[in-house]
Amino acid sequence: MSQRQTPPGVSAAALERAFAAFTRVVGEQWALRSEEDRRTYEDLYAFDAVDQHIPSGAVAPGDVEQVRALVRLANEHRIPLWPISRGKNLGYGGAAPRMAGTVVLDLGRMNRILDVNEKFGYCIVEPGVGFYDLFDHLQRERIQLWMSAPGQTWGSVVGNALDRGNGAPLGEHAERICGLEVVLPDGDLVRTGMGAMSNSDTWAAFKHGYGPSWDFAFTQSNFGVVTKMGLWLMPAPEASLSLRMKLPRAEDAGWAIDALRPLRLQGVISQPAGIGNYLRDAAVRSQRQQWHQGEGAMPDAEVQRMIDTLGIGWWSVRMRFFGPEQVNAAKARVVRDAFAKRTRIEFEEQVWRSGEPLAASGAAIPSVSGLRLANWMGGQGAHSTFSPVLPADGALATAHLARVRARFSEHGFDYYGGFTLGERALIFTSGIIFNRDDAAMKARARALFAALIEDAAAAGYGEYRTHLSFMDRVAQSFDFNEGALRRLNEKVKNALDPRGIIAPGKQGIWPRAYPETRR
Amino acid sequence: MSQRQTPPGVSAAALERAFAAFTRVVGEQWALRSEEDRRTYEDLYAFDAVDQHIPSGAVAPGDVEQVRALVRLANEHRIPLWPISRGKNLGYGGAAPRMAGTVVLDLGRMNRILDVNEKFGYCIVEPGVGFYDLFDHLQRERIQLWMSAPGQTWGSVVGNALDRGNGAPLGEHAERICGLEVVLPDGDLVRTGMGAMSNSDTWAAFKHGYGPSWDFAFTQSNFGVVTKMGLWLMPAPEASLSLRMKLPRAEDAGWAIDALRPLRLQGVISQPAGIGNYLRDAAVRSQRQQWHQGEGAMPDAEVQRMIDTLGIGWWSVRMRFFGPEQVNAAKARVVRDAFAKRTRIEFEEQVWRSGEPLAASGAAIPSVSGLRLANWMGGQGAHSTFSPVLPADGALATAHLARVRARFSEHGFDYYGGFTLGERALIFTSGIIFNRDDAAMKARARALFAALIEDAAAAGYGEYRTHLSFMDRVAQSFDFNEGALRRLNEKVKNALDPRGIIAPGKQGIWPRAYPETRR
Repeated sequence: MSQRQTPPGVSAAALERAFAAFTRVVGEQWALRSEEDRRTYEDLYAFDAVDQHIPSGAVAPGDVEQVRALVRLANEHRIPLWPISRGKNLGYGGAAPRMAGTVVLDLGRMNRILDVNEKFGYCIVEPGVGFYDLFDHLQRERIQLWMSAPGQTWGSVVGNALDRGNGAPLGEHAERICGLEVVLPDGDLVRTGMGAMSNSDTWAAFKHGYGPSWDFAFTQSNFGVVTKMGLWLMPAPEASLSLRMKLPRAEDAGWAIDALRPLRLQGVISQPAGIGNYLRDAAVRSQRQQWHQGEGAMPDAEVQRMIDTLGIGWWSVRMRFFGPEQVNAAKARVVRDAFAKRTRIEFEEQVWRSGEPLAASGAAIPSVSGLRLANWMGGQGAHSTFSPVLPADGALATAHLARVRARFSEHGFDYYGGFTLGERALIFTSGIIFNRDDAAMKARARALFAALIEDAAAAGYGEYRTHLSFMDRVAQSFDFNEGALRRLNEKVKNALDPRGIIAPGKQGIWPRAYPETRR
Repeated sequence: MSQRQTPPGVSAAALERAFAAFTRVVGEQWALRSEEDRRTYEDLYAFDAVDQHIPSGAVAPGDVEQVRALVRLANEHRIPLWPISRGKNLGYGGAAPRMAGTVVLDLGRMNRILDVNEKFGYCIVEPGVGFYDLFDHLQRERIQLWMSAPGQTWGSVVGNALDRGNGAPLGEHAERICGLEVVLPDGDLVRTGMGAMSNSDTWAAFKHGYGPSWDFAFTQSNFGVVTKMGLWLMPAPEASLSLRMKLPRAEDAGWAIDALRPLRLQGVISQPAGIGNYLRDAAVRSQRQQWHQGEGAMPDAEVQRMIDTLGIGWWSVRMRFFGPEQVNAAKARVVRDAFAKRTRIEFEEQVWRSGEPLAASGAAIPSVSGLRLANWMGGQGAHSTFSPVLPADGALATAHLARVRARFSEHGFDYYGGFTLGERALIFTSGIIFNRDDAAMKARARALFAALIEDAAAAGYGEYRTHLSFMDRVAQSFDFNEGALRRLNEKVKNALDPRGIIAPGKQGIWPRAYPETRR
């Protein structure tokens, strides 16, 4: 067993004293200090030795007043805290802190659904509420609202939105945030937007309120601990219509992006459209060893054999419309007409009507079956996602795809990825799947990730999110005026959190208190 | 002539020295110090004596490096600056600063349209670019993009969006902001979002970037001086379809709001829908004296006579769809069906197709003819807008309408206003129109405004924006945890701007440097 890691500059005895104080707030049961407890919070999908991101313990408050008390004590004892909601940020670091020795502030016990307003289409939830919880609540209470969720849904509704996660049907979940309650690093409690009026009826109904608007500054942020979130849900539609098309060649992504962009811009397609490669279909249905035994990336011929055998496309293009049936139908006609100018392949269309089984509707139904992809390489599966943002342009996207695929091959990985089209830009995700028990493969995965960052930065493409191990590196790639945005972030960080106790190093933002850990 | 007002704690000689330094940066021509210059920046629509918001002069930089130099000098000389774009924030204070003696930082000379990207549907503009300029540019270059603009369009594209102005076709313009360049109060220069990567192609194409997202924190804000803005435009549609309905009674607003809300929530109506009262139609076409001679609000019988004579409704409900004709038609059918369950009145429908005269399209075409409304009361017209946010609920809206109308009558004003429906909330605007040469009427207008704030706060409704004279009062109404949001704003303000030089008092945010002016 490794010796207990303490935060930088904190002795084992000082940590003991802090935990004694924390325990008086939350009780013995919720001050978690055993080796087993600590391992619960490690990053299972770590690129590095897990001890680089191992906490010195965890503390789990039961309500906002306990959070405030813990934050005040952390200031007093100078103990850094890493807030997590449910800690399922898989592929980006899970529950683990950026800096070893940081104490995890586990908000999972704060799991109340405080309000679901069917009329206005929103909920107000605490960080511990999972997608499963929210789904079950909506079903049980027969509330005619749908949530949006990522592919793997065991995480937190709040945590996912704060980290700017994507999902279906609604795309970028942070865009649905409307009003936060935040414990600031000094223990003060603020509500943003209209919630700053104590008797407000519109906290979760109207964004921004009066004066500077803070919600987005608390996303991917270490400026405070979010304890409540208003989030916009969608009304359960009377119908949905899905369009899906298989495209046979890697190059087809280019024209498909160019066909989709004007439809997204006009709002004909109002949810993100996805273009995913063959491995996104194959990896949840099979393992690599069924198709290929050797080292290195699968050769093109074997990829083609797999595509043919599984009856999948090189790409699969998917979109869905939700709403009145006649509006969905009119939009689908416009999309089909636009694609008919580019290809003879036809969309597979599926219409769902309210009352039919939800499985075919496109509603977010909790599932973690997609995680099977992690088993692709065999052994104990792990994955991480590299996700730069590109203009929604076919030629740029296919040019960068070629660079990315070459890097995957060079490092011996099968290319897994695709494009999620926003209105003007696309998120180009590439998943690195590796066996976490294979140290050499893990090292190759890390080298691949680093190379991808460099390639993207050279092309002018920044990541919108990244794994703990690369937070500093990605932050460095945002280099305008010698890192002016980082200076702004750190100036505000130091003002709000002079002792640097909330999530030091999160997204490359380091408080003054931890200069030695910097970059 | 009044004596020159200096900023608090600044002697006339110190102000002279500062202006001498400013002049070395911008040249004699752009350091504006005469009485006539100062009067150019006063608030023509002031509720108070205009001298409460009179600047001690103005300085007009020609580029971002001059802005940085001026900001550094302002720190050195401790001179507060009030940045304006074009200063046409009429009804909210125009070009005038919150605190008398503040020097106006007039960004009107920085009027370059730096980029218009037709493919991705955005522009990057400087603060001096007016709606007229942008419209002319798009027309002249035959760019197939449309802007969105407020009713009166002589203002700045940037200034309007930063103040969270609304307009057509796109509603809340701040929602279209994508990437800012900001001179911070210490003279540092930051670019937000993806613009924080120096070679980024997606600055104005993808919102938020990496880490905490700052764009919204610079709206209605005094944290910096915005010098460039990415803004999303809409593609010129192939068609538009407008629906308009006159409703005969004040009570009709209730069911109309309840009919519209689910259509907004579902996205059938994707732009804000407006419900405006008779005076919004009558005041641009006539003056009060044509209908009524006496003091006090027009009696109901005369209002009805005016409505009948002009052939307008008590309310006019308006919405418009933009896009492929068949999609617009399908949406309009859904709206008509929903309204048919509530009324026998039918919508007037107008279809516009690309190539037909733009006037009928719903495109934002610059105009200030709407300003005629200010002449309603006779004399030198002025107006101000009271704009609380309510849940999009018919019963709540009509109940609050009754309170507001009673206040208007009580203070002797004719009710002017309506509702702009967002997806979950509505902005309930009431315009107070007064003769600025009539001191007694002006005093009544002020008293009415104050009463409206109190009534709204008591009901839990906060304003999303307000006039200089009421910025503190509205800020006070955001009272959660004894003004926690103000504490957060002021903590960040003091960290970024320790000498308090940028827009002290803006939206009730006062830097430490000006405690004496506080509230």
